[in-house]
Amino acid sequence: MKIGIVVPSSNVAMLSDRRSAYGRYASPDTEIFARALHDRVPLEADPSDDFLTPEILEQVMMAERSGMDAVIVDCMEDPGVEEARRLVRIPVVGPGHAAMSLAAMLSYRFSILYPLAQVRLIERLVLRHGFAPMLASIRHLSCGLDGIRQDEQATLECMVDAALTAVRKDGAHAIVPACTLTSALTQELMRRLHEQQCPVPVVDGPGAAVKLAETLIDIGAEPSRVTYPPTLGIAYPLR
Amino acid sequence: MKIGIVVPSSNVAMLSDRRSAYGRYASPDTEIFARALHDRVPLEADPSDDFLTPEILEQVMMAERSGMDAVIVDCMEDPGVEEARRLVRIPVVGPGHAAMSLAAMLSYRFSILYPLAQVRLIERLVLRHGFAPMLASIRHLSCGLDGIRQDEQATLECMVDAALTAVRKDGAHAIVPACTLTSALTQELMRRLHEQQCPVPVVDGPGAAVKLAETLIDIGAEPSRVTYPPTLGIAYPLR
Amino acid sequence: MKIGIVVPSSNVAMLSDRRSAYGRYASPDTEIFARALHDRVPLEADPSDDFLTPEILEQVMMAERSGMDAVIVDCMEDPGVEEARRLVRIPVVGPGHAAMSLAAMLSYRFSILYPLAQVRLIERLVLRHGFAPMLASIRHLSCGLDGIRQDEQATLECMVDAALTAVRKDGAHAIVPACTLTSALTQELMRRLHEQQCPVPVVDGPGAAVKLAETLIDIGAEPSRVTYPPTLGIAYPLR
Amino acid sequence: MKIGIVVPSSNVAMLSDRRSAYGRYASPDTEIFARALHDRVPLEADPSDDFLTPEILEQVMMAERSGMDAVIVDCMEDPGVEEARRLVRIPVVGPGHAAMSLAAMLSYRFSILYPLAQVRLIERLVLRHGFAPMLASIRHLSCGLDGIRQDEQATLECMVDAALTAVRKDGAHAIVPACTLTSALTQELMRRLHEQQCPVPVVDGPGAAVKLAETLIDIGAEPSRVTYPPTLGIAYPLR
Amino acid sequence: MKIGIVVPSSNVAMLSDRRSAYGRYASPDTEIFARALHDRVPLEADPSDDFLTPEILEQVMMAERSGMDAVIVDCMEDPGVEEARRLVRIPVVGPGHAAMSLAAMLSYRFSILYPLAQVRLIERLVLRHGFAPMLASIRHLSCGLDGIRQDEQATLECMVDAALTAVRKDGAHAIVPACTLTSALTQELMRRLHEQQCPVPVVDGPGAAVKLAETLIDIGAEPSRVTYPPTLGIAYPLR
Amino acid sequence: MKIGIVVPSSNVAMLSDRRSAYGRYASPDTEIFARALHDRVPLEADPSDDFLTPEILEQVMMAERSGMDAVIVDCMEDPGVEEARRLVRIPVVGPGHAAMSLAAMLSYRFSILYPLAQVRLIERLVLRHGFAPMLASIRHLSCGLDGIRQDEQATLECMVDAALTAVRKDGAHAIVPACTLTSALTQELMRRLHEQQCPVPVVDGPGAAVKLAETLIDIGAEPSRVTYPPTLGIAYPLR
Repeated sequence: MKIGIVVPSSNVAMLSDRRSAYGRYASPDTEIFARALHDRVPLEADPSDDFLTPEILEQVMMAERSGMDAVIVDCMEDPGVEEARRLVRIPVVGPGHAAMSLAAMLSYRFSILYPLAQVRLIERLVLRHGFAPMLASIRHLSCGLDGIRQDEQATLECMVDAALTAVRKDGAHAIVPACTLTSALTQELMRRLHEQQCPVPVVDGPGAAVKLAETLIDIGAEPSRVTYPPTLGIAYPLR
Repeated sequence: MKIGIVVPSSNVAMLSDRRSAYGRYASPDTEIFARALHDRVPLEADPSDDFLTPEILEQVMMAERSGMDAVIVDCMEDPGVEEARRLVRIPVVGPGHAAMSLAAMLSYRFSILYPLAQVRLIERLVLRHGFAPMLASIRHLSCGLDGIRQDEQATLECMVDAALTAVRKDGAHAIVPACTLTSALTQELMRRLHEQQCPVPVVDGPGAAVKLAETLIDIGAEPSRVTYPPTLGIAYPLR
Repeated sequence: MKIGIVVPSSNVAMLSDRRSAYGRYASPDTEIFARALHDRVPLEADPSDDFLTPEILEQVMMAERSGMDAVIVDCMEDPGVEEARRLVRIPVVGPGHAAMSLAAMLSYRFSILYPLAQVRLIERLVLRHGFAPMLASIRHLSCGLDGIRQDEQATLECMVDAALTAVRKDGAHAIVPACTLTSALTQELMRRLHEQQCPVPVVDGPGAAVKLAETLIDIGAEPSRVTYPPTLGIAYPLR
Repeated sequence: MKIGIVVPSSNVAMLSDRRSAYGRYASPDTEIFARALHDRVPLEADPSDDFLTPEILEQVMMAERSGMDAVIVDCMEDPGVEEARRLVRIPVVGPGHAAMSLAAMLSYRFSILYPLAQVRLIERLVLRHGFAPMLASIRHLSCGLDGIRQDEQATLECMVDAALTAVRKDGAHAIVPACTLTSALTQELMRRLHEQQCPVPVVDGPGAAVKLAETLIDIGAEPSRVTYPPTLGIAYPLR
Repeated sequence: MKIGIVVPSSNVAMLSDRRSAYGRYASPDTEIFARALHDRVPLEADPSDDFLTPEILEQVMMAERSGMDAVIVDCMEDPGVEEARRLVRIPVVGPGHAAMSLAAMLSYRFSILYPLAQVRLIERLVLRHGFAPMLASIRHLSCGLDGIRQDEQATLECMVDAALTAVRKDGAHAIVPACTLTSALTQELMRRLHEQQCPVPVVDGPGAAVKLAETLIDIGAEPSRVTYPPTLGIAYPLR
Repeated sequence: MKIGIVVPSSNVAMLSDRRSAYGRYASPDTEIFARALHDRVPLEADPSDDFLTPEILEQVMMAERSGMDAVIVDCMEDPGVEEARRLVRIPVVGPGHAAMSLAAMLSYRFSILYPLAQVRLIERLVLRHGFAPMLASIRHLSCGLDGIRQDEQATLECMVDAALTAVRKDGAHAIVPACTLTSALTQELMRRLHEQQCPVPVVDGPGAAVKLAETLIDIGAEPSRVTYPPTLGIAYPLR
């Protein structure tokens, strides 16, 4: 099967790395394809900015037209995911929703590690999908998004610290790092937590998303057309 | 003070009617201005379609630049409202959230009258703002959106029927019609309900929105910048 | 329009100050009238004491008889407000409910600043109106009620400290001071929070209440008679 | 031990009947005393009318002074119960709260049978104590309060009908009749439900209240003084 | 990978059918093994009976010892699943929790179709995992468990009826049949619903469970040891 | 009346002490009987271990056969309690549920003191019975279970510390110690809290349970057969 990854950035240099984040957990017979946004989007654009939604939706529709069996939007805030389900027939998966749902199946209460100061951007997703009663805390990653991009070892230490605090102070039973860029550190983070007597699962967003996409393809599940009614048949894009 | 109404349609023929829906409840010293979307948007576009969000956001920003003190998006699903708060400093008001909030202050439990079969489009707003425990029901208006546009008297009868059922069967204590186009029928609907021994308030979306906009201007309240952090300073639109 | 303020105290010396707290946010064509309780109530009586409820209800009924268009009970715990709605036809507004409702429209989660040790008195209002999921914390104001009455500058510093803690530790997105006596400090408190990089709204109880009263008068909304059924027609008071 | 019943009516003719409703379930060494309100309260007064609260509070204080070990307010809406806890040191029990709490221990979800059209008066109690998630429905008793007073057999049939509907249509697992006047019918109602293959408990308000009062006396439990802080030491009544 | 199915019955004649229910959705490289309970369990035993829990736990431990990579308990009430997680290191999956979680990702609100009169047995699972706000209804399947075993076509018609009612009356956006024995009818049920203009997903328990088991193996996720602490190292079984 | 206590341990040396914990709060005409589990259960077995459930159920059934009027399982996690209700006709009471329910009637919000590191074992009970909104915190007792068994004075000091922190930091209005072994310390703990200006009730598990059992016997209440449907009539135990 073929899974398309929509990377909500116009930076094509990231594509190979993003593809491998998802490929790491894919089944042997799954092919992963990644696409960036149109280059009319500035390099430094914020993926949670709603001006980008049509650009994301366009890539989702293009993924369907180019034969993908499912599509994943590579961002833990799941920008455009619910909207996209109204436009295409293939499954559209968000790593944020997928990871929270998996964390809720492995534990009673999870904490999110988040690199932005604006925690509300991820809190909105928690509220939207009804996970508020299962949220122990949102812990800010002091390394920030720049730190994640520049120094892998420092990022790991920062995640270990935040996760230990989440478990010991906030009562978390599981950890959801809310940045798809730290995916390669997930297994090591989990190992470190076990070493520190915090035997909790760390749920990886890209891993959860790619397995959910495969699941939806295998069982032939479409999203509910009551929850996600198709939009009217207008020719897009508007430009 | 000046309040701008963004009508999420490219149909300029509606503007005068929309202006008067809001003007009806405005204070004497409030001026109401209405704008439609850019004509690149097809006339029959669905306001809940997320491809329209950037078009709405653009009009909100233009309203701020042209000196409005507040802006209202004229649609009960509040499309683009939360996003717009990240882009401008003036208050941005949605009639859906405003009306539900007012209904919750006048009663314990309200029902929504909705003209579309896709109730999820308004249910999403209920969930997002935490009104689920106060929702008695969403009752479909069998006249539909076309009926609302074409036959005022039939629309009124349809609303009376749905509202009576909401009160008598679903236990509603208040009614929120979820279409801004029926605003002129609100007072008559309320009168008819009282006549039928259903003494419940009918909360008008445009009325609630214009009074909330005036309130926010008068008390100088900005939305929380923690809830609505500003987006990065990129030149929009992308085109 | 005419708005009556019922001050739940027999101290007539406070009336002029209370009138101006509400007048500050009133529309130009709104007249504010304030009344104290009957002098049979001791000066030091506690407004949350239910022996006072009939005294408050009596003043609400008197306000209606003397031609007020709406009435506000000047206390953030909203004593007697829901009961009063069963006795009169004009809108009865509580600044506690009004301020929390406005805070919930400007943010995802608010904290209350409260001068009494008995936080349960305001917590009860939070629970009653369904705001528990939106409450970040109730922070005690260490200056107490006496401090508020005696030293305005110290009260402001105390509020700034409590509000900063609420935002930084408790994750508040907005602030609701729960004492109508600090109303004159609201704007300065908000300015100080912005200065300290805490750009959150501070919602003033008297401001929220007076604008809500004007709104209810303008749109002609009565409270739901299902939620607030009239009491039997007995001659009051009982004495 | 001595338990005082405050009957929220000035009708002394009811006292003997009310005393036996509570005596039926009391332990052998419990004495039941009943008092009506002061005769300044009109005979036809509505117990949910807040003008009566001080009259109820006065009787509660008098019960404490006359040596009662606990006091119960004889009305399923629990008027004045929470307020009274701030005024006396002996336990104050409401049959509404006691019965709902017991129903929640015997089942997952209960329905209330209510004789008044104004269901909100009992719904308010459900909301206040957090039982909304366990409420299957509030079913109106068509016999009304007058029927309850005049025709016992017809009342029973009406209760059987409403209870069967609650179980079969609304999914109730237990039944709480919300009128203390039907207490004598409880066992027969339960027997009839079992006969009709609806093996659910019927929780009697007076029974639940008297046993809770005995429990609180036996274990020496005072209400929390954080939840119910004492009021200031003012001489009451105000008259 | 190897997945063990624990069939909570001592009827070995069912094993081949149960194996194929799970094999239908398994990946090509997954092997499915099924085991029944010890023959000391009577054939007609009720899987929700807690006397069976140790028998189920024993089979789960035996599955781990015999080299399974994950284990599924073949019953929508998930008997013993949470308990088993405290005893073994391999993932233990329940089809009930797995299916509800998947339904919540494809829709806003789902209904359960249940063949037993005792709806509380499945309602308990809904409450335990926090899905109550997403539950539209539990619809009883009038064919019952015997009907399911004896007449496939009648069972399908019964499911179609119940599902249509759930969507049209109860507002369901998705359907979860809560009996693993109807798994072979899932695709046909979904087809029939689409044909009747009810375009909602039907989530198959065995399908959801087998894909979740594969996911947990692939991403190496253990359940949280905070949520599921290991039990003490006692030699089991007790006999 | 006769109340049986099932002690979920095979240590018969504890029986006399356990009997007196319940006898302390029993009515004069109540007889308390205590039974341990079968000696096939190892002395050091964990009562929350589900392998013990059938052993507990067996003792509950034996209590009914030997003429008990009600039975209590002596463990705050209420192991087997809900299951047992399906097997016998006499009331089955858990001290955990009984104590939480009583705490919720005396206060708005309670904290639990728990001696095990695995707080989830008691958190599960909180979630199952819908007390999550009333839970202020679960505070770990650093003395642990061994400390409770060995040093009464140190245990008391540890409980005082934890309770004071719960009230002052977590906002608890009442305290529920979640170990039945500390029952003898309850009154002294409450006295110490009052002395420290923390006038909150401490709700004793055995006390709450024995009074609830007496209540259920006196009012003749069976658990709901909809919530707790009888299991099939199979001959137990399976051995």
